[in-house]
Amino acid sequence: MSLKAKAAKESFVVMNELVLPNDTNTLNNLMGGRLLHWMDIAAAISAQKHCNRIVVTASVDNVSFKQPIKLGDVITIEAKVTRAFNTSVEVRLDVWAENIPSGHRIKSNEAYYTFVALDPQDRTIAVPELRPETPEEIELFDGALRRRQLRLVLAGKMKAEDAKELRAIFTAG
Amino acid sequence: MSLKAKAAKESFVVMNELVLPNDTNTLNNLMGGRLLHWMDIAAAISAQKHCNRIVVTASVDNVSFKQPIKLGDVITIEAKVTRAFNTSVEVRLDVWAENIPSGHRIKSNEAYYTFVALDPQDRTIAVPELRPETPEEIELFDGALRRRQLRLVLAGKMKAEDAKELRAIFTAG
Amino acid sequence: MSLKAKAAKESFVVMNELVLPNDTNTLNNLMGGRLLHWMDIAAAISAQKHCNRIVVTASVDNVSFKQPIKLGDVITIEAKVTRAFNTSVEVRLDVWAENIPSGHRIKSNEAYYTFVALDPQDRTIAVPELRPETPEEIELFDGALRRRQLRLVLAGKMKAEDAKELRAIFTAG
Amino acid sequence: MSLKAKAAKESFVVMNELVLPNDTNTLNNLMGGRLLHWMDIAAAISAQKHCNRIVVTASVDNVSFKQPIKLGDVITIEAKVTRAFNTSVEVRLDVWAENIPSGHRIKSNEAYYTFVALDPQDRTIAVPELRPETPEEIELFDGALRRRQLRLVLAGKMKAEDAKELRAIFTAG
Amino acid sequence: MSLKAKAAKESFVVMNELVLPNDTNTLNNLMGGRLLHWMDIAAAISAQKHCNRIVVTASVDNVSFKQPIKLGDVITIEAKVTRAFNTSVEVRLDVWAENIPSGHRIKSNEAYYTFVALDPQDRTIAVPELRPETPEEIELFDGALRRRQLRLVLAGKMKAEDAKELRAIFTAG
Amino acid sequence: MSLKAKAAKESFVVMNELVLPNDTNTLNNLMGGRLLHWMDIAAAISAQKHCNRIVVTASVDNVSFKQPIKLGDVITIEAKVTRAFNTSVEVRLDVWAENIPSGHRIKSNEAYYTFVALDPQDRTIAVPELRPETPEEIELFDGALRRRQLRLVLAGKMKAEDAKELRAIFTAG
Repeated sequence: MSLKAKAAKESFVVMNELVLPNDTNTLNNLMGGRLLHWMDIAAAISAQKHCNRIVVTASVDNVSFKQPIKLGDVITIEAKVTRAFNTSVEVRLDVWAENIPSGHRIKSNEAYYTFVALDPQDRTIAVPELRPETPEEIELFDGALRRRQLRLVLAGKMKAEDAKELRAIFTAG
Repeated sequence: MSLKAKAAKESFVVMNELVLPNDTNTLNNLMGGRLLHWMDIAAAISAQKHCNRIVVTASVDNVSFKQPIKLGDVITIEAKVTRAFNTSVEVRLDVWAENIPSGHRIKSNEAYYTFVALDPQDRTIAVPELRPETPEEIELFDGALRRRQLRLVLAGKMKAEDAKELRAIFTAG
Repeated sequence: MSLKAKAAKESFVVMNELVLPNDTNTLNNLMGGRLLHWMDIAAAISAQKHCNRIVVTASVDNVSFKQPIKLGDVITIEAKVTRAFNTSVEVRLDVWAENIPSGHRIKSNEAYYTFVALDPQDRTIAVPELRPETPEEIELFDGALRRRQLRLVLAGKMKAEDAKELRAIFTAG
Repeated sequence: MSLKAKAAKESFVVMNELVLPNDTNTLNNLMGGRLLHWMDIAAAISAQKHCNRIVVTASVDNVSFKQPIKLGDVITIEAKVTRAFNTSVEVRLDVWAENIPSGHRIKSNEAYYTFVALDPQDRTIAVPELRPETPEEIELFDGALRRRQLRLVLAGKMKAEDAKELRAIFTAG
Repeated sequence: MSLKAKAAKESFVVMNELVLPNDTNTLNNLMGGRLLHWMDIAAAISAQKHCNRIVVTASVDNVSFKQPIKLGDVITIEAKVTRAFNTSVEVRLDVWAENIPSGHRIKSNEAYYTFVALDPQDRTIAVPELRPETPEEIELFDGALRRRQLRLVLAGKMKAEDAKELRAIFTAG
Repeated sequence: MSLKAKAAKESFVVMNELVLPNDTNTLNNLMGGRLLHWMDIAAAISAQKHCNRIVVTASVDNVSFKQPIKLGDVITIEAKVTRAFNTSVEVRLDVWAENIPSGHRIKSNEAYYTFVALDPQDRTIAVPELRPETPEEIELFDGALRRRQLRLVLAGKMKAEDAKELRAIFTAG
């Protein structure tokens, strides 16, 4: 592939959002789906910066929400590409919620979204490789293989016994 | 617990949505985050019908999107509670996309969302048990334990070697 | 016309929506226009399933709202085609509102929307006939003629004295 | 009732809206429900100006849409109170659509919405009388009785044979 | 230029909006950006009526908001073209906020937006001249030159010493 | 004032947004008002981080838009507090637009918004001072006085001849 590899920092994206009334339930808690929507937009922007292509969401890994986020809180979402496969990329997301009057800030959740790059005729197309640089980026890059196996097993596209990297975790004991 | 158990069909919810321009990228493909948002609303309605309580999203399991959904398609989301735990419920979602002129309909994806029930002071509160009735409901009810273990392992709240149900899958070979 | 007639159940659509803050006035009552908007989307989906065509709203019959619907309620809208005319269909809507904590559910209203089917050049085009099957479907099918006369009279396209079916109601005594 | 009667012009409201992509179907035609939503907001503002109270929509009379309105058109909605009853008002709406490049403007439709006034505890409350001044206002004021009878008959709250004003139309010939 | 000059009243636009929950912060005050957005739409409609062209916003002059506008208030925006330059127009906006229960109405702010007219290929294109008629329109027409100089100076496109009209104000003393 | 001064970097905010269909006119150009709305949210978040208070927009300085931004572009908005006055702060905004396929990025505009801090009873309240640290921050801090004079003159709250800092610019020649 002749596409030039890119560093993770070239696709780093930060997004801030205010939790507004329509984003909340009647107890003034942010609805999870609204946050997943914002995360998808942040992740898609990151994937598009890496690929210089329009992308579509291919999958979302398990996401757990630690505690209710409230009306008026400021959400900060950080997104960066962790690894590229042939025509797809994995994006890591970190999400925080900050209460304005107190300045108290909590880590809300982490997540991985994957995207497929498309050409103008909606066909998948090759994307640049991701070149990890810092120790954290290298760790994310390496873990991407294991997460990919879990996705394939859960989607019924790979047998559990063939998911070597993943299997090691469960048979370690 | 004195709450009366409920059947799965009591929380069955159907939602239909039209894919509008703002839900799509510049290739007219539905953005994944918008679909996750609709799925969360459908699932929350189902969970609220079961619990008769306001709920907040606690987690979303791996979701994979099989093929692009297009502008103008009709989305059908079916949601039903599969199992209740002390203060939470798991909801199963099935999503289809239908092209209007051709009438062609595809299964887009399946997913599991979990919700925690809250009282008016935002504290978790007990929910009714789910009583599975059909063979499919019983299978979903049984599988809920294994999915719960995977969630706990992935969230770092349970060790892989303690996830007995889950482990069986990876050590079977 | 060579289009194959369709059963009413083939165009049956259910839509569930949560009443969110922006849908309400400052007394937390759902605004009627928001509900009319949701009903139009549900009815258009139903009409499009019947016609396999893009449709536009041609008319809405009298709608009366029985009592205020509140913030946080779950709206359920059922839509089905009652009868097809040359290039248009009539859709019947039934709307309920459910209060989550109490589980109390009220019938909010019924309504009839009509739609015209369009080809890709925005010209009206023939639609399949509707084949009523159940006694209720037959009653709705028969009543459609009378409602159509009332629409034409109210739109100034038919003289009151020519609306035979309709006139019978007012001259019965 | 000690509330001071008001002139129709005191509640006259004009609203202009641009037809945006999300307001249209895939043929770029404005969806009827979106227009009904805008009309409801314009009418509610007019009703609130007359009543100095929060109002909720009680009914919408038959509305027919004459021809498709297109993406990018400018919608002009005029609303004014035609008559007040004890705790409710009828609002007349006139809607035009203008194509910007050509300057061509069409009358899209007319409609009548009724609203009930509420006090802060959600109870119906008396509203000021409407004092018609111009010949057109007097005609609208007089016609309001007949439209009210039609609403009551259609809602099953009045027998057709008791709707004297209305009946005259159908038995004239 | 062969385009026929137009009177200011031909592009006069009124827009009414209800302040809804999502338009406000957690103290129920309208967010300034939401108002600037509505003002831009009203002004663009006015500019488009004058030019019979699609327009894009070129600049917004200083806007100051006098006092908080509250949830449930009715916003009235009036827009009219004050002067045309070769391919652009200046639009004057006047904004009021009315509290419904009290009927109390305040002038919220005034503003000037400028727009550039575009042909279907996105190139700037000549617009009709504006012919002021009333004394107020003539004053706005004359002041447009001075405001234009201030815009050019603030955008770094004109030196302060060349802005003769503007300079007179600061050197008067 | 006993509030502890804060550094500019403590209120630095980045926001990324995708230009969606509803944000554009029929030539697929971003509407200026939508951008002003996003800028207001980014600036309000920055002001709230500095003040630890809910804020309302008090004014927006002249903003000029250099060239059309297109559908699908990624908007990046950077906001930071430049100076605090008694109960208000000035926020500087820098806005870029990036075309995804080409990676081409343009500076769209700069702007200054000011906000007033409010206590829970909607009264203005003192805010922490801003302590500039870098040469750029010091220059922005110094210029804030001059911009404040221009705002006061334009709002009719200060005579041009009393605006010493500002006047120097126009009488220099």
